[in-house]
Amino acid sequence: MTESELIERLRRLFPKIGDDAAVVGDQVITTDMLIEDVDFTRAVPMESVARKSLTSNLSDLAAMGARPSFAVVALGAPKWLDIIAFMSAMAEAAQKYSIEIVGGDLSRAEKLVVSIAAIGIAKRPLRRSGAKAGDRVYVSRPLGASSAGLQLLQSGWPRDLPYTQREFAESVIRRHIDPEPEVTLGIPLASIDAVNACIDISDGLSTDLHHLCDASGVGAEIERERLPVFPDLTAIGPAMGIDVRRAVLHGGEEYALLFTSSMRESELSERVGRPVYAIGKIVVERGVRIDGEQLPAGGFDHFA
Amino acid sequence: MTESELIERLRRLFPKIGDDAAVVGDQVITTDMLIEDVDFTRAVPMESVARKSLTSNLSDLAAMGARPSFAVVALGAPKWLDIIAFMSAMAEAAQKYSIEIVGGDLSRAEKLVVSIAAIGIAKRPLRRSGAKAGDRVYVSRPLGASSAGLQLLQSGWPRDLPYTQREFAESVIRRHIDPEPEVTLGIPLASIDAVNACIDISDGLSTDLHHLCDASGVGAEIERERLPVFPDLTAIGPAMGIDVRRAVLHGGEEYALLFTSSMRESELSERVGRPVYAIGKIVVERGVRIDGEQLPAGGFDHFA
Repeated sequence: MTESELIERLRRLFPKIGDDAAVVGDQVITTDMLIEDVDFTRAVPMESVARKSLTSNLSDLAAMGARPSFAVVALGAPKWLDIIAFMSAMAEAAQKYSIEIVGGDLSRAEKLVVSIAAIGIAKRPLRRSGAKAGDRVYVSRPLGASSAGLQLLQSGWPRDLPYTQREFAESVIRRHIDPEPEVTLGIPLASIDAVNACIDISDGLSTDLHHLCDASGVGAEIERERLPVFPDLTAIGPAMGIDVRRAVLHGGEEYALLFTSSMRESELSERVGRPVYAIGKIVVERGVRIDGEQLPAGGFDHFA
Repeated sequence: MTESELIERLRRLFPKIGDDAAVVGDQVITTDMLIEDVDFTRAVPMESVARKSLTSNLSDLAAMGARPSFAVVALGAPKWLDIIAFMSAMAEAAQKYSIEIVGGDLSRAEKLVVSIAAIGIAKRPLRRSGAKAGDRVYVSRPLGASSAGLQLLQSGWPRDLPYTQREFAESVIRRHIDPEPEVTLGIPLASIDAVNACIDISDGLSTDLHHLCDASGVGAEIERERLPVFPDLTAIGPAMGIDVRRAVLHGGEEYALLFTSSMRESELSERVGRPVYAIGKIVVERGVRIDGEQLPAGGFDHFA
């Protein structure tokens, strides 16, 4: 059973499950669990894991256009973990994004597990299911860095690289271990009536675009040359063994927003006060295509 | 560092943490994580683990006098787990206690981890910190079964017991693996102005009474002979190797409520429509005493 099939069966048990976060009145609520050796390894600084566990929830709130409100944290802490340092890093991230950690649960565990539930407020929550044929498909920032950073972390990149390569490596690794959730973009997007659907790119552009299209009952056509690529990834990545196409199209944990709107790129960028990138359009015909070819979901599937 | 010391340091980082659940407006929110081989083993039916993961959260809501509203579930699922059966059991428990599971997160994991955040509504939340000298100390039901059940599970009790012993064993094991949260008691208690403080017995009577007294800046004196003991535990338990005093005073995961009120036992029982048990009184002098002797916190401490 793939994750999609499993989630389909779970959805029959819990009909409200579907978006990045659940909507209850004017609140949205989301939860994310990170597990050692599944979602991260001890090669990553634990302070980054602490921040990322909050970030992934904040990204879900951003995708719904919600303002962060409060969160609870359940921590399964192995003996080697400096709990105070870990939670201090999380507290700092919480302050940065104006979310208050109001409660928690602490247990011993063999492997580090951190599970957060976060609640936000949204008058008009953005959903995956609102995309309409004719909408433009947008991403909120250049893609590929998170996946490239993960690949370099896993391959144990050499430290004696030339300066530009080392700088590139450090910057993509930083993007992987300390991603920025699009908290300040989601809120203005939700206030624009012409923004119809939104999801965050956690499983990879291809997979999450499939999720959005499937939820909306539409298809999408995107153009390779319109995809914004992380600076220097095209120039430096291949020499370091990075498959740029794969990183951009299928790389997970980007925490960029993927959304659709009837508005033009220039108009929408002006409304939100920063660049956003139109990469294609929503069409009636189901499925996702890139330059006319089928683009299968190629991102991360826990249960594949 | 003990759990108490650690929590004290965490409290400085997160000042709102303290009660069984956090209070935000008229909402209360709690989270609990259960981890395989820490909180349960595979000897227990997984459907019970599913129910208990929800029950422990519902018990926290009950301790705050909150009406269950909604919950999110993060599940780290090992390959051997029947996820649909697990979540079906949880869905059934959710329906029983009128809480709606609105969202979740699913990952692969080596060991089963389930983390739930639950939200309830309370106009006047009950807190640990409200106990006043002169209050009576109450427990909501007879104690000792959960701990006795755990002990029998761990010792692998013989199946060829005489009928009464087998029936006793099965009943205490059931109380351990499928505890009932006091959802229908917490709500009426919160509506009674003369109920001043409440906590659920998750770490054991002694430990949780210390928690309540410490939060309230008071002490407690309880009487051994007033403690309600689970039926047949005194008569049958010792022959099966159960330390009854230990099970009653220090046994965790009871999910009974421990609360204080200026009202008399008969009066309070009548108000809530069921028996509640006065076991002693709140006094000015700090610490917890039983029949005049110090009663140290002897329950479960993850970090001892």
